[in-house]
Amino acid sequence: MDFSSKLLENAVQEIALLPGIGKRTALRLALHLLKQPKENTELLSKALTALREGVKFCSNCHNLSDHPLCEICSSPKRDKKLLCVVEDIRDVMAIENTGQFQGVYHVLGGIISPMEGVGPQDLNIASLINKAKEGEIDEVIFALSATMEADTTNFYIYKLLTPFEIKTSTIARGIPVGDELEYTDEVTLGRSILARIPFEASISKS
Amino acid sequence: MDFSSKLLENAVQEIALLPGIGKRTALRLALHLLKQPKENTELLSKALTALREGVKFCSNCHNLSDHPLCEICSSPKRDKKLLCVVEDIRDVMAIENTGQFQGVYHVLGGIISPMEGVGPQDLNIASLINKAKEGEIDEVIFALSATMEADTTNFYIYKLLTPFEIKTSTIARGIPVGDELEYTDEVTLGRSILARIPFEASISKS
Repeated sequence: MDFSSKLLENAVQEIALLPGIGKRTALRLALHLLKQPKENTELLSKALTALREGVKFCSNCHNLSDHPLCEICSSPKRDKKLLCVVEDIRDVMAIENTGQFQGVYHVLGGIISPMEGVGPQDLNIASLINKAKEGEIDEVIFALSATMEADTTNFYIYKLLTPFEIKTSTIARGIPVGDELEYTDEVTLGRSILARIPFEASISKS
Repeated sequence: MDFSSKLLENAVQEIALLPGIGKRTALRLALHLLKQPKENTELLSKALTALREGVKFCSNCHNLSDHPLCEICSSPKRDKKLLCVVEDIRDVMAIENTGQFQGVYHVLGGIISPMEGVGPQDLNIASLINKAKEGEIDEVIFALSATMEADTTNFYIYKLLTPFEIKTSTIARGIPVGDELEYTDEVTLGRSILARIPFEASISKS
Protein backbone atom coordinates (compact mmCIF):
# COMPACT_ATOMS: atom_id res chain seq x y z
CA MET A 1 0.00 0.00 0.00
CA ASP A 2 1.20 3.47 -0.88
CA PHE A 3 0.29 6.07 1.70
CA SER A 4 0.14 9.75 0.90
CA SER A 5 0.93 10.56 4.52
CA LYS A 6 3.69 9.18 6.76
CA LEU A 7 1.52 9.79 9.83
CA LEU A 8 -1.25 7.69 8.34
CA GLU A 9 1.18 4.96 7.35
CA ASN A 10 2.62 4.87 10.84
CA ALA A 11 -0.82 4.72 12.50
CA VAL A 12 -1.97 1.96 10.16
CA GLN A 13 1.16 -0.07 10.88
CA GLU A 14 0.65 0.24 14.63
CA ILE A 15 -3.03 -0.67 14.47
CA ALA A 16 -2.29 -3.64 12.21
CA LEU A 17 -0.06 -5.11 14.97
CA LEU A 18 -3.21 -5.91 16.95
CA PRO A 19 -4.34 -9.52 16.62
CA GLY A 20 -6.96 -10.20 13.95
CA ILE A 21 -6.59 -6.76 12.37
CA GLY A 22 -5.06 -6.57 8.90
CA LYS A 23 -3.80 -3.55 7.00
CA ARG A 24 -7.13 -2.88 5.30
CA THR A 25 -9.08 -2.89 8.55
CA ALA A 26 -6.38 -0.78 10.17
CA LEU A 27 -6.73 1.79 7.39
CA ARG A 28 -10.51 1.80 7.80
CA LEU A 29 -10.13 2.40 11.55
CA ALA A 30 -7.56 5.17 11.03
CA LEU A 31 -9.79 6.96 8.50
CA HIS A 32 -12.73 6.57 10.88
CA LEU A 33 -10.76 8.34 13.61
CA LEU A 34 -9.94 11.14 11.17
CA LYS A 35 -13.63 11.68 10.49
CA GLN A 36 -14.46 11.87 14.19
CA PRO A 37 -13.78 14.86 16.48
CA LYS A 38 -10.21 15.07 17.80
CA GLU A 39 -11.42 14.38 21.34
CA ASN A 40 -12.41 10.80 20.45
CA THR A 41 -8.89 9.87 19.40
CA GLU A 42 -7.53 11.56 22.48
CA LEU A 43 -9.90 9.63 24.76
CA LEU A 44 -8.99 6.37 23.05
CA SER A 45 -5.24 6.80 23.27
CA LYS A 46 -5.47 8.06 26.85
CA ALA A 47 -7.58 5.05 27.84
CA LEU A 48 -5.03 2.68 26.29
CA THR A 49 -2.07 4.33 27.98
CA ALA A 50 -3.89 4.50 31.32
CA LEU A 51 -4.78 0.83 31.06
CA ARG A 52 -1.24 -0.26 30.30
CA GLU A 53 0.37 2.02 32.88
CA GLY A 54 -2.16 1.72 35.68
CA VAL A 55 -3.59 -1.75 35.71
CA LYS A 56 -2.41 -4.12 38.43
CA PHE A 57 -2.83 -7.78 39.13
CA CYS A 58 -4.49 -9.01 42.32
CA SER A 59 -1.68 -10.26 44.57
CA ASN A 60 -3.80 -13.23 45.58
CA CYS A 61 -5.55 -14.54 42.46
CA HIS A 62 -3.67 -12.69 39.64
CA ASN A 63 -6.93 -11.31 38.27
CA LEU A 64 -6.75 -7.80 36.78
CA SER A 65 -7.54 -5.21 39.42
CA ASP A 66 -7.13 -1.52 40.18
CA HIS A 67 -6.30 -2.41 43.82
CA PRO A 68 -3.69 -4.71 45.38
CA LEU A 69 -6.48 -7.18 46.19
CA CYS A 70 -9.31 -7.65 43.68
CA GLU A 71 -12.98 -7.25 44.55
CA ILE A 72 -13.61 -10.99 44.56
CA CYS A 73 -10.68 -11.84 46.83
CA SER A 74 -11.56 -9.01 49.23
CA SER A 75 -15.27 -9.85 49.41
CA PRO A 76 -16.31 -11.44 52.73
CA LYS A 77 -19.13 -13.27 50.92
CA ARG A 78 -16.82 -15.48 48.87
CA ASP A 79 -15.65 -18.90 50.07
CA LYS A 80 -11.84 -18.63 50.15
CA LYS A 81 -11.50 -22.40 50.62
CA LEU A 82 -13.02 -23.12 47.20
CA LEU A 83 -10.59 -22.27 44.42
CA CYS A 84 -11.40 -22.19 40.71
CA VAL A 85 -8.34 -22.44 38.41
CA VAL A 86 -8.79 -20.58 35.10
CA GLU A 87 -6.59 -19.67 32.16
CA ASP A 88 -7.13 -15.92 31.98
CA ILE A 89 -9.33 -13.11 33.20
CA ARG A 90 -11.87 -13.55 30.41
CA ASP A 91 -12.74 -16.89 32.02
CA VAL A 92 -13.22 -15.17 35.38
CA MET A 93 -15.66 -12.78 33.71
CA ALA A 94 -17.48 -15.62 31.98
CA ILE A 95 -17.91 -17.62 35.20
CA GLU A 96 -18.86 -14.52 37.20
CA ASN A 97 -21.58 -13.79 34.66
CA THR A 98 -23.20 -17.15 35.41
CA GLY A 99 -23.66 -16.13 39.07
CA GLN A 100 -23.23 -19.82 40.00
CA PHE A 101 -19.85 -19.70 41.70
CA GLN A 102 -19.30 -18.41 45.24
CA GLY A 103 -15.64 -19.33 45.68
CA VAL A 104 -12.52 -17.46 44.56
CA TYR A 105 -10.32 -17.77 41.48
CA HIS A 106 -6.73 -18.46 40.58
CA VAL A 107 -5.70 -17.06 37.19
CA LEU A 108 -2.85 -19.03 35.62
CA GLY A 109 -2.17 -16.43 32.93
CA GLY A 110 -2.03 -19.06 30.18
CA ILE A 111 -1.69 -22.80 29.73
CA ILE A 112 1.29 -25.07 29.25
CA SER A 113 2.03 -25.08 25.51
CA PRO A 114 5.38 -26.40 24.27
CA MET A 115 4.42 -25.28 20.75
CA GLU A 116 4.28 -21.64 21.87
CA GLY A 117 7.15 -21.99 24.31
CA VAL A 118 5.00 -21.63 27.42
CA GLY A 119 6.26 -23.80 30.27
CA PRO A 120 4.98 -24.23 33.84
CA GLN A 121 7.46 -21.62 35.08
CA ASP A 122 5.76 -18.97 32.93
CA LEU A 123 2.41 -19.50 34.68
CA ASN A 124 1.12 -18.64 38.14
CA ILE A 125 1.44 -22.22 39.36
CA ALA A 126 3.94 -21.79 42.21
CA SER A 127 1.61 -19.45 44.07
CA LEU A 128 -1.22 -21.93 43.65
CA ILE A 129 0.83 -24.76 45.18
CA ASN A 130 1.83 -22.38 47.95
CA LYS A 131 -1.81 -21.78 48.84
CA ALA A 132 -2.30 -25.55 48.98
CA LYS A 133 0.80 -25.97 51.14
CA GLU A 134 -0.42 -23.47 53.67
CA GLY A 135 -3.75 -25.26 53.98
CA GLU A 136 -5.73 -22.37 52.58
CA ILE A 137 -7.87 -24.45 50.23
CA ASP A 138 -10.30 -27.37 50.53
CA GLU A 139 -11.23 -27.86 46.90
CA VAL A 140 -9.70 -26.95 43.55
CA ILE A 141 -11.96 -26.79 40.50
CA PHE A 142 -10.17 -26.98 37.16
CA ALA A 143 -12.03 -24.75 34.72
CA LEU A 144 -9.74 -24.70 31.71
CA SER A 145 -10.81 -25.09 28.09
CA ALA A 146 -11.39 -28.57 26.65
CA THR A 147 -8.13 -28.76 24.68
CA MET A 148 -5.09 -31.00 24.77
CA GLU A 149 -2.89 -28.26 26.24
CA ALA A 150 -5.47 -27.51 28.91
CA ASP A 151 -5.68 -31.20 29.85
CA THR A 152 -1.88 -31.29 30.16
CA THR A 153 -1.96 -28.23 32.40
CA ASN A 154 -4.74 -29.73 34.53
CA PHE A 155 -2.78 -32.93 34.98
CA TYR A 156 0.47 -31.12 35.78
CA ILE A 157 -1.18 -29.13 38.56
CA TYR A 158 -3.13 -32.16 39.76
CA LYS A 159 0.13 -34.08 40.27
CA LEU A 160 1.61 -31.20 42.28
CA LEU A 161 -1.49 -31.07 44.46
CA THR A 162 -1.56 -34.79 45.37
CA PRO A 163 0.72 -34.45 48.47
CA PHE A 164 -1.91 -32.24 50.06
CA GLU A 165 -5.36 -33.33 51.15
CA ILE A 166 -7.33 -31.32 48.66
CA LYS A 167 -10.45 -32.31 46.78
CA THR A 168 -10.02 -31.72 43.05
CA SER A 169 -12.72 -31.54 40.42
CA THR A 170 -13.10 -30.41 36.85
CA ILE A 171 -16.05 -28.65 35.26
CA ALA A 172 -18.45 -31.02 33.50
CA ARG A 173 -17.94 -31.78 29.81
CA GLY A 174 -21.13 -32.67 27.98
CA ILE A 175 -23.81 -31.59 25.56
CA PRO A 176 -24.27 -27.80 25.73
CA VAL A 177 -27.72 -26.74 26.90
CA GLY A 178 -29.91 -26.19 23.82
CA ASP A 179 -27.79 -28.33 21.49
CA GLU A 180 -29.15 -31.20 19.43
CA LEU A 181 -27.71 -34.63 20.04
CA GLU A 182 -27.20 -35.56 16.39
CA TYR A 183 -24.94 -32.56 15.73
CA THR A 184 -22.73 -33.11 18.78
CA ASP A 185 -19.24 -34.45 18.06
CA GLU A 186 -18.62 -38.03 19.12
CA VAL A 187 -15.93 -37.31 21.73
CA THR A 188 -18.24 -34.97 23.62
CA LEU A 189 -21.16 -37.37 23.28
CA GLY A 190 -19.02 -40.29 24.45
CA ARG A 191 -17.76 -38.36 27.46
CA SER A 192 -21.24 -37.22 28.35
CA ILE A 193 -22.41 -40.86 28.54
CA LEU A 194 -19.43 -41.93 30.66
CA ALA A 195 -19.92 -38.93 32.94
CA ARG A 196 -23.70 -39.38 33.28
CA ILE A 197 -25.27 -38.04 36.46
CA PRO A 198 -28.29 -39.26 38.45
CA PHE A 199 -31.49 -37.89 36.96
CA GLU A 200 -32.55 -36.39 40.28
CA ALA A 201 -29.32 -34.36 40.37
CA SER A 202 -29.95 -32.98 36.87
CA ILE A 203 -33.37 -31.72 37.95
CA SER A 204 -32.13 -29.99 41.08
CA LYS A 205 -29.27 -28.36 39.19
CA SER A 206 -31.35 -26.75 36.50
CA MET B 1 -19.91 -7.61 31.22
CA ASP B 2 -18.52 -7.19 34.72
CA PHE B 3 -15.00 -5.84 34.74
CA SER B 4 -12.66 -6.29 37.69
CA SER B 5 -10.84 -3.10 36.70
CA LYS B 6 -12.23 0.33 35.86
CA LEU B 7 -9.23 1.04 33.64
CA LEU B 8 -9.94 -2.09 31.63
CA GLU B 9 -13.63 -1.25 31.38
CA ASN B 10 -12.81 2.24 30.15
CA ALA B 11 -10.31 1.00 27.55
CA VAL B 12 -12.74 -1.64 26.29
CA GLN B 13 -15.50 0.95 25.96
CA GLU B 14 -13.27 3.27 23.95
CA ILE B 15 -12.01 0.51 21.65
CA ALA B 16 -15.56 -0.75 21.09
CA LEU B 17 -16.49 2.68 19.66
CA LEU B 18 -14.45 1.83 16.56
CA PRO B 19 -16.53 0.57 13.63
CA GLY B 20 -16.86 -3.19 13.35
CA ILE B 21 -15.39 -3.84 16.79
CA GLY B 22 -17.69 -5.23 19.46
CA LYS B 23 -17.15 -5.51 23.20
CA ARG B 24 -15.70 -9.00 23.02
CA THR B 25 -13.14 -8.08 20.36
CA ALA B 26 -12.32 -4.90 22.28
CA LEU B 27 -11.63 -6.97 25.39
CA ARG B 28 -9.42 -9.33 23.41
CA LEU B 29 -7.44 -6.38 22.02
CA ALA B 30 -7.09 -4.76 25.46
CA LEU B 31 -5.84 -8.01 27.01
CA HIS B 32 -3.43 -8.42 24.09
CA LEU B 33 -1.94 -4.99 24.83
CA LEU B 34 -1.54 -5.97 28.48
CA LYS B 35 0.47 -9.03 27.50
CA GLN B 36 2.79 -6.97 25.29
CA PRO B 37 5.60 -4.69 26.51
CA LYS B 38 4.47 -1.23 27.63
CA GLU B 39 6.27 0.38 24.71
CA ASN B 40 3.88 -1.17 22.20
CA THR B 41 0.85 0.51 23.75
CA GLU B 42 2.76 3.76 23.95
CA LEU B 43 3.72 3.58 20.26
CA LEU B 44 0.14 2.81 19.30
CA SER B 45 -1.46 5.63 21.24
CA LYS B 46 1.24 8.08 20.14
CA ALA B 47 0.72 7.11 16.49
CA LEU B 48 -3.03 7.66 16.83
CA THR B 49 -2.66 11.05 18.49
CA ALA B 50 0.02 12.15 16.00
CA LEU B 51 -2.22 11.10 13.11
CA ARG B 52 -5.24 12.99 14.40
CA GLU B 53 -3.27 16.10 15.40
CA GLY B 54 -0.81 16.26 12.55
CA VAL B 55 -2.47 15.05 9.39
CA LYS B 56 -3.45 17.65 6.82
CA PHE B 57 -5.46 17.62 3.65
CA CYS B 58 -3.92 18.60 0.33
CA SER B 59 -5.23 22.08 -0.45
CA ASN B 60 -5.71 21.11 -4.08
CA CYS B 61 -7.18 17.59 -4.16
CA HIS B 62 -8.20 17.07 -0.48
CA ASN B 63 -6.14 13.90 -0.29
CA LEU B 64 -4.48 13.20 3.08
CA SER B 65 -1.01 14.65 3.14
CA ASP B 66 1.71 15.73 5.54
CA HIS B 67 2.39 18.80 3.38
CA PRO B 68 0.11 21.60 2.12
CA LEU B 69 0.27 20.04 -1.37
CA CYS B 70 0.25 16.24 -1.68
CA GLU B 71 2.90 14.26 -3.54
CA ILE B 72 0.61 13.59 -6.49
CA CYS B 73 -0.46 17.22 -6.94
CA SER B 74 3.11 18.47 -6.62
CA SER B 75 4.58 15.90 -9.03
CA PRO B 76 5.61 17.41 -12.40
CA LYS B 77 4.94 14.01 -14.04
CA ARG B 78 1.20 14.08 -13.44
CA ASP B 79 -1.25 15.50 -15.95
CA LYS B 80 -3.06 18.28 -14.04
CA LYS B 81 -5.67 18.61 -16.81
CA LEU B 82 -6.98 15.09 -16.22
CA LEU B 83 -8.99 14.91 -13.00
CA CYS B 84 -10.25 11.72 -11.37
CA VAL B 85 -13.13 12.26 -8.90
CA VAL B 86 -13.16 9.74 -6.04
CA GLU B 87 -15.07 9.27 -2.79
CA ASP B 88 -12.24 9.00 -0.29
CA ILE B 89 -8.52 8.50 0.02
CA ARG B 90 -8.80 4.71 0.01
CA ASP B 91 -9.93 5.02 -3.61
CA VAL B 92 -6.88 7.15 -4.41
CA MET B 93 -4.67 4.40 -2.95
CA ALA B 94 -6.53 1.71 -4.90
CA ILE B 95 -6.17 3.55 -8.21
CA GLU B 96 -2.54 4.48 -7.51
CA ASN B 97 -1.79 0.80 -6.93
CA THR B 98 -2.91 -0.02 -10.48
CA GLY B 99 -0.24 2.29 -11.88
CA GLN B 100 -2.59 3.02 -14.80
CA PHE B 101 -3.52 6.62 -14.04
CA GLN B 102 -1.25 9.57 -14.75
CA GLY B 103 -3.64 12.41 -13.95
CA VAL B 104 -4.52 13.94 -10.58
CA TYR B 105 -7.35 13.31 -8.13
CA HIS B 106 -10.17 15.19 -6.49
CA VAL B 107 -11.34 13.61 -3.22
CA LEU B 108 -14.98 14.39 -2.44
CA GLY B 109 -14.78 13.15 1.14
CA GLY B 110 -17.99 11.14 0.80
CA ILE B 111 -21.02 10.83 -1.46
CA ILE B 112 -24.43 12.45 -1.41
CA SER B 113 -26.59 10.35 0.89
CA PRO B 114 -29.88 11.77 2.18
CA MET B 115 -30.23 8.68 4.41
CA GLU B 116 -27.08 9.61 6.31
CA GLY B 117 -27.71 13.34 6.12
CA VAL B 118 -24.83 14.02 3.72
CA GLY B 119 -25.69 16.78 1.26
CA PRO B 120 -23.61 18.37 -1.56
CA GLN B 121 -22.51 21.16 0.80
CA ASP B 122 -20.76 18.58 3.03
CA LEU B 123 -18.55 17.43 0.17
CA ASN B 124 -15.61 19.02 -1.67
CA ILE B 125 -17.75 19.88 -4.70
CA ALA B 126 -17.43 23.68 -4.74
CA SER B 127 -13.65 23.48 -5.14
CA LEU B 128 -14.11 21.02 -8.00
CA ILE B 129 -16.46 23.37 -9.86
CA ASN B 130 -14.01 26.18 -9.18
CA LYS B 131 -11.24 24.27 -10.93
CA ALA B 132 -13.55 23.80 -13.91
CA LYS B 133 -14.51 27.48 -13.89
CA GLU B 134 -10.88 28.54 -14.03
CA GLY B 135 -10.23 26.29 -17.01
CA GLU B 136 -7.78 24.09 -15.16
CA ILE B 137 -9.23 20.78 -16.39
CA ASP B 138 -9.84 19.10 -19.74
CA GLU B 139 -11.42 15.85 -18.61
CA VAL B 140 -13.17 14.64 -15.46
CA ILE B 141 -13.28 10.90 -14.77
CA PHE B 142 -15.95 9.81 -12.30
CA ALA B 143 -14.53 6.89 -10.29
CA LEU B 144 -17.13 6.41 -7.58
CA SER B 145 -18.55 3.08 -6.44
CA ALA B 146 -21.35 1.43 -8.40
CA THR B 147 -24.16 2.34 -5.98
CA MET B 148 -27.33 4.41 -6.20
CA GLU B 149 -25.85 7.20 -4.01
CA ALA B 150 -22.70 7.29 -6.13
CA ASP B 151 -24.76 7.57 -9.32
CA THR B 152 -26.69 10.48 -7.78
CA THR B 153 -23.43 12.18 -6.84
CA ASN B 154 -22.01 11.62 -10.32
CA PHE B 155 -25.10 13.12 -11.91
CA TYR B 156 -25.18 16.09 -9.53
CA ILE B 157 -21.59 17.01 -10.36
CA TYR B 158 -22.12 16.28 -14.06
CA LYS B 159 -24.95 18.82 -14.16
CA LEU B 160 -22.78 21.46 -12.51
CA LEU B 161 -20.00 20.82 -15.04
CA THR B 162 -22.17 21.19 -18.18
CA PRO B 163 -21.67 24.99 -18.51
CA PHE B 164 -17.96 24.39 -19.03
CA GLU B 165 -16.39 22.66 -21.98
CA ILE B 166 -15.09 19.64 -20.16
CA LYS B 167 -15.03 16.04 -21.32
CA THR B 168 -16.59 13.75 -18.71
CA SER B 169 -16.26 10.01 -18.44
CA THR B 170 -16.93 7.30 -15.93
CA ILE B 171 -14.88 4.20 -15.23
CA ALA B 172 -16.11 1.11 -17.08
CA ARG B 173 -18.63 -1.18 -15.42
CA GLY B 174 -18.41 -4.78 -16.54
CA ILE B 175 -17.35 -8.29 -15.73
CA PRO B 176 -14.37 -8.26 -13.34
CA VAL B 177 -11.25 -9.80 -14.84
CA GLY B 178 -11.13 -13.47 -13.86
CA ASP B 179 -14.86 -13.75 -13.12
CA GLU B 180 -17.10 -16.35 -14.72
CA LEU B 181 -20.00 -15.12 -16.79
CA GLU B 182 -22.66 -17.40 -15.32
CA TYR B 183 -22.04 -16.09 -11.78
CA THR B 184 -22.17 -12.40 -12.74
CA ASP B 185 -25.31 -10.54 -11.67
CA GLU B 186 -27.66 -9.59 -14.51
CA VAL B 187 -27.38 -5.80 -14.11
CA THR B 188 -23.61 -5.94 -14.53
CA LEU B 189 -23.90 -8.39 -17.39
CA GLY B 190 -26.53 -6.23 -19.10
CA ARG B 191 -24.44 -3.09 -18.73
CA SER B 192 -21.36 -4.86 -20.03
CA ILE B 193 -23.22 -5.77 -23.23
CA LEU B 194 -24.54 -2.24 -23.73
CA ALA B 195 -21.10 -0.80 -23.05
CA ARG B 196 -19.26 -3.24 -25.30
CA ILE B 197 -15.98 -2.03 -26.76
CA PRO B 198 -14.29 -2.80 -30.09
CA PHE B 199 -12.31 -6.04 -29.83
CA GLU B 200 -9.13 -4.36 -31.02
CA ALA B 201 -9.39 -1.89 -28.12
CA SER B 202 -9.75 -4.73 -25.61
CA ILE B 203 -6.53 -6.28 -26.86
CA SER B 204 -4.50 -3.10 -26.73
CA LYS B 205 -5.72 -2.29 -23.20
CA SER B 206 -4.78 -5.53 -21.56
